[in-house]
Amino acid sequence: VVQYGVGPIGASIAQLMRQKCAIEICGAIDSDPAKVGRDLGDVVGAGDAPWGIPISDDEPRVLQQAPHVVIHSTSSSLPRVMDQLLACVRAGSCVVSTCEELAYPFRTNPALAEKLDAEAKAHGVAVVGTGVNPGFVMDKLAVTLAAESQRVEQVRISRVVNASNRRLPLQRKIGAGMTPDDFAASAANGTIRHVGLPESVAMIAHYLNLPVEEISEMIEPVIARERVSSDFLTVETGQVAGVHQIARGLSGGRDLVYLELQMYVGAKNPYDRIELQGHPAVSLMIPSGSHGDIATASVVVNSVPAILQAQPGLRTSCDLPIGFLSPTLETLPRWRTR
Amino acid sequence: VVQYGVGPIGASIAQLMRQKCAIEICGAIDSDPAKVGRDLGDVVGAGDAPWGIPISDDEPRVLQQAPHVVIHSTSSSLPRVMDQLLACVRAGSCVVSTCEELAYPFRTNPALAEKLDAEAKAHGVAVVGTGVNPGFVMDKLAVTLAAESQRVEQVRISRVVNASNRRLPLQRKIGAGMTPDDFAASAANGTIRHVGLPESVAMIAHYLNLPVEEISEMIEPVIARERVSSDFLTVETGQVAGVHQIARGLSGGRDLVYLELQMYVGAKNPYDRIELQGHPAVSLMIPSGSHGDIATASVVVNSVPAILQAQPGLRTSCDLPIGFLSPTLETLPRWRTR
Repeated sequence: VVQYGVGPIGASIAQLMRQKCAIEICGAIDSDPAKVGRDLGDVVGAGDAPWGIPISDDEPRVLQQAPHVVIHSTSSSLPRVMDQLLACVRAGSCVVSTCEELAYPFRTNPALAEKLDAEAKAHGVAVVGTGVNPGFVMDKLAVTLAAESQRVEQVRISRVVNASNRRLPLQRKIGAGMTPDDFAASAANGTIRHVGLPESVAMIAHYLNLPVEEISEMIEPVIARERVSSDFLTVETGQVAGVHQIARGLSGGRDLVYLELQMYVGAKNPYDRIELQGHPAVSLMIPSGSHGDIATASVVVNSVPAILQAQPGLRTSCDLPIGFLSPTLETLPRWRTR
Repeated sequence: VVQYGVGPIGASIAQLMRQKCAIEICGAIDSDPAKVGRDLGDVVGAGDAPWGIPISDDEPRVLQQAPHVVIHSTSSSLPRVMDQLLACVRAGSCVVSTCEELAYPFRTNPALAEKLDAEAKAHGVAVVGTGVNPGFVMDKLAVTLAAESQRVEQVRISRVVNASNRRLPLQRKIGAGMTPDDFAASAANGTIRHVGLPESVAMIAHYLNLPVEEISEMIEPVIARERVSSDFLTVETGQVAGVHQIARGLSGGRDLVYLELQMYVGAKNPYDRIELQGHPAVSLMIPSGSHGDIATASVVVNSVPAILQAQPGLRTSCDLPIGFLSPTLETLPRWRTR
């Protein structure tokens, strides 16, 4: 496996892969001059560093090894990472990416989705965008729960994340510490935003066959009512603590899918809740919620056996079988050239 | 699709299939003389009966149509239904069965599992045993949740079911209304028991790669502390209200998997709870719990598209992709002869 992107999430994934007997990390790509040439184990802060794996910015050279899988974790934007994904596919590698817009791009980025699907099929490899959200807790888990249901009329999912103990880039991405005015400007130009809710709406609508005509998205700040601090920053009373986002899948003005995400520094009662209205109504609760970074690394690494067995093409997290990659498991499914 | 077995669960499945545009019921098998020759729609109490589908006890003749799928729902015992399953497979039909011992028979009935797997492969069809429990809430859902986890050390699942509004055969099967002495005798000879917990333990151990050496099972009565009534019977104070069962997957005397099921008339706070110990610990709660009969019919019918696309052989619910069969979906995946 090659790790493409060694930011906080990529580092967390690399550390987890290192703990799995069945995975051998054979290379790492990053363009950051502060990391290039250094050992991957050192950069991710591993106790057993060095690993003897230099981080390289020479993508063609690293991919020349034709790794079975590339774990890709560089950006939320599909247009921005398209060339990177195509390079992996053309090297004959399956790809598991944390790019949020790749989770279900068939509706939000149809042209790129089609191109990537065609190239993946041409090279006999499978590609998926996944993570905890999008990719699991606000989409795949809801579709999984629908197995208990005879008829699903509406899906409501609410996720509250305490950003206090999350990585600094995430705290910045949700606007923690900004003034409300700065937040409004940044939200308007798209720099402040958790990416992926419209993709989750589209994914749910597809797999539950809900006739969603339109997907809307709104974002507002969560304002701190008292001074709160994280390991990295302090938010004063009246400043922005994080984001409150709602994405809706609508049909004739009615919500068929309603996703609500609150992610802010100082959230006291984090949780994930899924409610399926229909026959029978069924709901599910994850007390304390799913930890964003740890769970994303888990979902990604646990997808490695599944992506090796998937049909070639652009897949979604819902297409992949469920699975867990035990640390002690010694062999992955055999890589099948098609 | 042919419905094999028209007891309460089979009837509930048939009614649900009737609501799905993509499914055509082309036959029904049952050996009960009170049902043979009657219309399936009439027997299941459908509002739109008759359906023009006579119930037949002539298995070879009904299977001669080579249905794409047989939904099988006659008994919890794999040895008892083995010939029925083989007949379906030899007719070239995929099978989705509610036989609890079929959910994961590789450990509890290895010889029968091997035979069935070989015959299914020889005939290019896939077979699965599923339902809500075993098949979903005490196994597949836990394995699904493990996607969020980096390391799972122990699985604990607790399910409390209120049997008050369940079918009479289930109330009888859990001993409701018996004296404690009669219960002890019936539990000892195996006639009182919810079947499937050891299969769920074995399934979880397999998919999470937990080194379970031994599976133990115990059963005790839940004694009514006050008089409780269901639609079908009354349980006096001091009589048996239902069962309390525990199945454990052990390694060196330590529980790696601990499943606890309480199913009794008058249970006031039903719920399903899954707890994964490990890194990170994660738990999931279904308030009010999954309804046994409705959810079993749902899980079975929602599995129809997946079984048509599954690799030939004996599969498990964890092997099948997640999925939901919308009532309005018009076509199933094309049946692929192998």
